[in-house]
Formats: sequence, C-alpha cells, structure tokens
Amino acid sequence: MDVCHKLGRRVQQLRQAKGWSQDEFAHRANLHRTYVSGVERGIRNPTITVLEKLARGLEITMSELVALEE
Amino acid sequence: MDVCHKLGRRVQQLRQAKGWSQDEFAHRANLHRTYVSGVERGIRNPTITVLEKLARGLEITMSELVALEE
Repeated sequence: MDVCHKLGRRVQQLRQAKGWSQDEFAHRANLHRTYVSGVERGIRNPTITVLEKLARGLEITMSELVALEE
Repeated sequence: MDVCHKLGRRVQQLRQAKGWSQDEFAHRANLHRTYVSGVERGIRNPTITVLEKLARGLEITMSELVALEE
C-alpha cells in the first residue's frame, strides 16, 4: 500500500474516532470537503502545508498524523 | 516561521549530523540536489511522497522528520 493510501486510512480512522463527518472535519481543517474525501481515498498527495492543516484539524501533531505502519 | 522553513532547517540539521553533503544526501534520497537545496532553504512545499523519500534518505521515520517545534 503506498503512502498516500496509508495516510488516507489513518485520516479516516482518526476522523471517525472523533465522530466527525467529512464535512465537519473539512471545516475544522479549513479544507474543501471533496479534498478531504480524496485524501481519505488515497488519491491525493498532500503537501506538508496541507498535512499541517490536517493535523491541526484533528487536534494532533504532524508526527502523530504520519505515524503510518512502515 | 512557516512549516516549509521549519522542515528545511530540520532536514539540514539531520543531514549535517550525518556528515553528508547535499549531493550525497540527494543521491541517498533519490532526489535531485537542487530540489534538496530548495527544501533546506524552505522554498519547497514537499508532498508526503517526497517526505517519505527524505525520511528514508535520512534513515529515520516520517514522524521523526516532521517533529518540528510547534
């Protein structure tokens, strides 16, 4: 599984653990809902500035966000 | 300082701690030297696939790579 799909699964898990819809999370992360949907499906290749937004939206650090199984 | 500049400083510190030139590191990370130079100067906004290459080249995890001071 490539890193984009691993990240997508991680973001989805973390979002669902918060009980948020993609809409709710997109608003918190200051991103467009369709972009969040693309990240979770692993079809986006987010830059570090977007990773920072995703982490802030999830209320975690970037390190926690990219703690993907190697 | 924005996240790209923080990352650049972090990459430079980690590379220098290994005693590698930008050339040496670029080769290890399978990236172009001018791109590495741009990352270290904070003028690049690397995607997660590039972050994975940078981390592998530095022989650390992505989590360690993006452990930037908040």
